[in-house]
Amino acid sequence: MAEAIEPKIFGFYDSGNGDRFLKTPCSRICTAAAGTSLFLWGMKIFLSMRPITFVTGNVKKLEEVTAILGSNTLFKVVRQDLDLPEYQGADPEYIVREKCLSAIRVTKGPTLVEDTCLCFNALKGLPGPYVKWFLAKIGPSGLANLLSSWEDKSAYALCLFAYSEGIDEKIFVFRGETEGIIVNPRGPQDFGWDACFQPNGSTLTYAEMEKDMKNSISHRSKALNAMKNHFSDIQMLRDKTDVSL
Amino acid sequence: MAEAIEPKIFGFYDSGNGDRFLKTPCSRICTAAAGTSLFLWGMKIFLSMRPITFVTGNVKKLEEVTAILGSNTLFKVVRQDLDLPEYQGADPEYIVREKCLSAIRVTKGPTLVEDTCLCFNALKGLPGPYVKWFLAKIGPSGLANLLSSWEDKSAYALCLFAYSEGIDEKIFVFRGETEGIIVNPRGPQDFGWDACFQPNGSTLTYAEMEKDMKNSISHRSKALNAMKNHFSDIQMLRDKTDVSL
Repeated sequence: MAEAIEPKIFGFYDSGNGDRFLKTPCSRICTAAAGTSLFLWGMKIFLSMRPITFVTGNVKKLEEVTAILGSNTLFKVVRQDLDLPEYQGADPEYIVREKCLSAIRVTKGPTLVEDTCLCFNALKGLPGPYVKWFLAKIGPSGLANLLSSWEDKSAYALCLFAYSEGIDEKIFVFRGETEGIIVNPRGPQDFGWDACFQPNGSTLTYAEMEKDMKNSISHRSKALNAMKNHFSDIQMLRDKTDVSL
Repeated sequence: MAEAIEPKIFGFYDSGNGDRFLKTPCSRICTAAAGTSLFLWGMKIFLSMRPITFVTGNVKKLEEVTAILGSNTLFKVVRQDLDLPEYQGADPEYIVREKCLSAIRVTKGPTLVEDTCLCFNALKGLPGPYVKWFLAKIGPSGLANLLSSWEDKSAYALCLFAYSEGIDEKIFVFRGETEGIIVNPRGPQDFGWDACFQPNGSTLTYAEMEKDMKNSISHRSKALNAMKNHFSDIQMLRDKTDVSL
């Protein structure tokens, strides 16, 4: 009987006063706790069948996301490596939203993308989203050299995940930020710009830290935790619906 | 009778051995000099009716393009200010090609776009296409400060025009490059990064030069001349076809 519902696009509707509702494909609004068993059963099957596509060329990033969301059995994350256009823009959030939109047009389902920035305060946030091009051309020491003329060496590492359930659905952006300073490279230089970024409160650069220590304070782990909270809310909502089945 | 042909997409076909042919909408190939009067008449009316849309927010750039192409009565250039996505990429030519494609999807006809880069050799071509963001954040003096750590202050200003006759048609890229050095700003600072770029062979920055002097050596004028030559070739081809009418 569940198949007869044939839901195609699903989402959560925010009433504006803190209540969240499940939105049906035909825009009928039901409270999460008061739907019929038939509807909830269909929803459960439907959600469990829809994996989240994490669009990234980096297998390690998938492992990191899966490790964080792993305890949440509702959400299965799969990786897809797409050659997506990367946009320019003054605002990193705009860039990651556009990336998410581009990805969704291909995946046509729940989609997750990520973007990382290294923002120098003296350069008012730059190189920011363009840091990958600078890193590729001049390496971590070159990045440090860019700031020679400025006394202010402060910077922040910024990670943004953008998630949406499908085309025309809301895009959620989860943000993680770690403040620090730009230093001459110390530690292994084989992972991005880690060797030239020293987080505040530490005497070590990202590159000099043990992985666990870095993960406990990193911009990426903060963004992942923000995302985990979002999915935990959805999980809680799902658990509530299970009670009524 | 010309209307009966109803040509929709026009272009030039390159045989590969230097000969150029006119391509009809139905992919029938005719030599430019040997088409029927009926076909050429239709083509003449058709071309004269199709203005080139120059997608830019900058009225001054339209004036510059019109001044260069002005003597060529076949090509009417009109301006359209579209909010186009700007792509990131390692190669400025890729970026301007993508910009042209994005524009064509809106204009659906002959389209021209432009992109300007300021490339520091010490930074292996960067900030390049991202210079506009750096200029907006740290100004010309900030741009000069980026190179404090490097002895090599050499740079090149790069202008790229991309032109295509329509969706699925070839994109032509016209390139103009002027070599120079990055200096602490001199001259008015109200026009881009002109105050910190001193072309080779000159003791003046772009900003300190008279407009005519700058235009005689600038990266933009070189790209425009390359484009003018392209359109002159087409004009010559058109004049040949007129003889046979």
